[in-house]
Amino acid sequence: MISREEINKVVSKYDKKKLTIATICSHSALQIFHGAKMEGFRTLGICTPDRRELYESYPLASPDSLLEVENYKEVLEPEFQEKLLKQNVIMVPHGSFVEYVGASNIHEKFSVPMFGNRESLGWESSRKKVREWIKKSSVKVPREFRHPSEIETVCIVKFSGAKGGRGFFLTSSEKDYEKKMKMKLDEGVITKTESENATIQEFINGVRYYPHYFYSPLMKGRDGNGRIEMLSIDRRMESNVEEIYRVMAAGTLQELNINPSYVVTGNAPITIRESLLPEVLNIGKRVRESSVSLFGGIVGPYCVEMVCTPELELYAFEISARIVAGTNLYPLGSFLSAYMFKEPMSTGRRIGREINIGIKEKKLDLLIY
Amino acid sequence: MISREEINKVVSKYDKKKLTIATICSHSALQIFHGAKMEGFRTLGICTPDRRELYESYPLASPDSLLEVENYKEVLEPEFQEKLLKQNVIMVPHGSFVEYVGASNIHEKFSVPMFGNRESLGWESSRKKVREWIKKSSVKVPREFRHPSEIETVCIVKFSGAKGGRGFFLTSSEKDYEKKMKMKLDEGVITKTESENATIQEFINGVRYYPHYFYSPLMKGRDGNGRIEMLSIDRRMESNVEEIYRVMAAGTLQELNINPSYVVTGNAPITIRESLLPEVLNIGKRVRESSVSLFGGIVGPYCVEMVCTPELELYAFEISARIVAGTNLYPLGSFLSAYMFKEPMSTGRRIGREINIGIKEKKLDLLIY
Amino acid sequence: MISREEINKVVSKYDKKKLTIATICSHSALQIFHGAKMEGFRTLGICTPDRRELYESYPLASPDSLLEVENYKEVLEPEFQEKLLKQNVIMVPHGSFVEYVGASNIHEKFSVPMFGNRESLGWESSRKKVREWIKKSSVKVPREFRHPSEIETVCIVKFSGAKGGRGFFLTSSEKDYEKKMKMKLDEGVITKTESENATIQEFINGVRYYPHYFYSPLMKGRDGNGRIEMLSIDRRMESNVEEIYRVMAAGTLQELNINPSYVVTGNAPITIRESLLPEVLNIGKRVRESSVSLFGGIVGPYCVEMVCTPELELYAFEISARIVAGTNLYPLGSFLSAYMFKEPMSTGRRIGREINIGIKEKKLDLLIY
Repeated sequence: MISREEINKVVSKYDKKKLTIATICSHSALQIFHGAKMEGFRTLGICTPDRRELYESYPLASPDSLLEVENYKEVLEPEFQEKLLKQNVIMVPHGSFVEYVGASNIHEKFSVPMFGNRESLGWESSRKKVREWIKKSSVKVPREFRHPSEIETVCIVKFSGAKGGRGFFLTSSEKDYEKKMKMKLDEGVITKTESENATIQEFINGVRYYPHYFYSPLMKGRDGNGRIEMLSIDRRMESNVEEIYRVMAAGTLQELNINPSYVVTGNAPITIRESLLPEVLNIGKRVRESSVSLFGGIVGPYCVEMVCTPELELYAFEISARIVAGTNLYPLGSFLSAYMFKEPMSTGRRIGREINIGIKEKKLDLLIY
Repeated sequence: MISREEINKVVSKYDKKKLTIATICSHSALQIFHGAKMEGFRTLGICTPDRRELYESYPLASPDSLLEVENYKEVLEPEFQEKLLKQNVIMVPHGSFVEYVGASNIHEKFSVPMFGNRESLGWESSRKKVREWIKKSSVKVPREFRHPSEIETVCIVKFSGAKGGRGFFLTSSEKDYEKKMKMKLDEGVITKTESENATIQEFINGVRYYPHYFYSPLMKGRDGNGRIEMLSIDRRMESNVEEIYRVMAAGTLQELNINPSYVVTGNAPITIRESLLPEVLNIGKRVRESSVSLFGGIVGPYCVEMVCTPELELYAFEISARIVAGTNLYPLGSFLSAYMFKEPMSTGRRIGREINIGIKEKKLDLLIY
Repeated sequence: MISREEINKVVSKYDKKKLTIATICSHSALQIFHGAKMEGFRTLGICTPDRRELYESYPLASPDSLLEVENYKEVLEPEFQEKLLKQNVIMVPHGSFVEYVGASNIHEKFSVPMFGNRESLGWESSRKKVREWIKKSSVKVPREFRHPSEIETVCIVKFSGAKGGRGFFLTSSEKDYEKKMKMKLDEGVITKTESENATIQEFINGVRYYPHYFYSPLMKGRDGNGRIEMLSIDRRMESNVEEIYRVMAAGTLQELNINPSYVVTGNAPITIRESLLPEVLNIGKRVRESSVSLFGGIVGPYCVEMVCTPELELYAFEISARIVAGTNLYPLGSFLSAYMFKEPMSTGRRIGREINIGIKEKKLDLLIY
């Protein structure tokens, strides 16, 4: 395991005037580069050859240099890390970085300083830990049923191995559960192990909101601690479920033999009614507070995925403990960040800004691990 | 009833160089404060203790001072009003203000000057009056059926007491109507009186658009009167109906025993095809014109909630005679306001701007009541 | 047929310091005028009397002069064209221009210089040619079935005569196809000829994305040719299908006797996940490249309408070879253009910018036809 001390030592040797902000070319990399450049940093992108074209196409978001890899796991190789360290790299993690490289690999083998608390990545990738975290934050969470016989309402069945929601299904009875699970197994969509470890979760029907928070340990919040900033909100567009009503016009899904799937393919802007914002902000605060005792605390951007019921109750069903792709909608700021910053402020730029404050106040150790 | 003369007298005594723009901390208050601050005004927020945190979190939208109340009806108390008058307050009404304090209370007991024509608030809160208003404006309106036996198409059943659409249901036959109404009564969702006064309205299927207008009596329009500005458009996100297709994947709503509900929980941006904009603008104009004879005329922001059918016909089903929350999406302006103002112009800022013009031209009496 | 030489001759006589950018007042005209004005051009709008009000309502997007017509086909009259030529007009085509005036009419009778390659308009208006074009670009395209007996999955049935999707229907079997087709004919929604030429296309279920490209022959791209710019993305809002889930809550569409329709009534912003952007950009590139051999190549704005499946495959189902209305969402730029231009850059402004470059480099002939 890479220790905090080890990383601190690396950072202490960095030339603070020549820091490089780097990330893997995917997910929210354009925004991260764009924001870092606005904040005056040198930038470096790690990309596969097929992606080079995109990352050279946007002058204001193209990294100053591109390091090509065949496989993103190469970032774990000592020689590769050496290259990054030589350029005084601070790595900004995002969803694809975690997915491609693996939370435990990052934790055990990646000695390059990262923005935020790398311990958070292990927490957000475990459905079980996230649930514990949400509960500890006193945020409502959908009920879970241990056995299909307990199903008494519409449920969504999730698999821990499945990426991005593929294979997930809705059910409302044990019988239907068994039928669908068998089908998924027969079709090879899921493995036996995944099937046995399936999560049966109450399906909360409402409107989904994905608020984007940023915790700054360096800005002073109302309670004397750091500051929670609520910078924007999005809604994820999942294929095919997001447009499944279009096909329902031809018949029932059963008749048509179509299964809904929940693979995130994009994001759309949305705002939540202002009378709910105090609670949304407070949820962000509670999630941050509980993270302190769980793993030393989130630093920087995070998201609490939630759904708003007709009774205006907010249920959280996920936490992302790093920048989320929904922030890509707002490279020049959002309807919320406009109330906080005079200049165009994306989450990507906010990261660069925080590092700049850290340099100035000589408190990078609070931001980096 | 508070008379126009009374309010004019109050305003005449105000120090015009020290006006304060105030509102209740909810609905679109951040935008109103943000806009007022941009226009150079002092701002004051009235909030319950649980909301203080939010309204202190956004430096550019936080009011200069916060007055705490336990219940928003306290604004009606003479001592409270006195405090507001001392600070030369112009109150900006919004949906939550009307909901919390009550249109008739505002009309009869609230002696603080308000932006716009307070008579409009009584009109927008009555479904019957709104219908009369829409018809008088020669705008298409969904048919209404007096008795369930007349139902001959898909209808939505609305209750005047229900807040934000809870309890509303869809039906397409008398038999189904009776069944569902009984269910709602049994479940205690609605009262007997509400049930008896239910509105049975043809359900127009299409895409909903909520254009945001602003009527300025001080800017000169094309016809020599004031100017109608069309500043932005949104779409309301109602829970749970907005994502009900997600649950339909598990079976029919009947099977699942799920009822759609229509509680507004947020807003998303949308624009309408340009070939429809002339009619949308004209609808705004006609609604404004008819309001003159009905109650002296709308001043400032309003919205005509409409649905666009496949035949490209626009049906109006509601009018909001004050700022709507959908404008919160555009604190720095929208795809429409960009064509009208060089500077970032939200509806909130537009209100402040109009007051500034009123001060300069000594015509506040045309803006305030 | 109006030849390229003829247009070049006209342009060569134009006073390049007094060019006028003109278009028909519809579709994306406000954006085109706004962008042209920002780039310093004189602007001219051609409009019917009922639209004058709108186009005089937005100071920053109102054309410097308006030419009234009763019918947009009047632009084909020699005297009318003369008026345009006298003002050194460069016409910017858009969807309504093509629809109102006709691609072949434009090609054969309209001697006014147009931005882009007018040959592209004949290609985009033919469903057959578009399909050929997409295939030649090695982009996935939904399967088509020649005869209803071949239907083996959910299909959408399209008619070439039908405007904007009216009459289109979904089906999943031959029997259902025959039933629905008969109904459409009986109802007079489509003609016998349209029915016989119906296209039976596999319905790809996923999330639709409409990326907005711009091909500049004057800016240097990565391969030494011109530059492909990906400026924004939208999603089209079709009535009534986009909100048909709301009515499904009352029963099945069959029970309710409601047919989905696909008439575009507006647009909403959306972004696609960044890991798909390299492919989206590359699709734009391939579509541009294949257009060179097909008809001399697209110049300026275009759109490839696509749907993203749960397997993250992108299927193209349409190409628009000119500015699309979805760009209206971004008059001051988008989440993508912000990475390319420091100044607010809409597609409309991008057109004006390209013409300015063409003037400066004396290469208008590469941009105009």
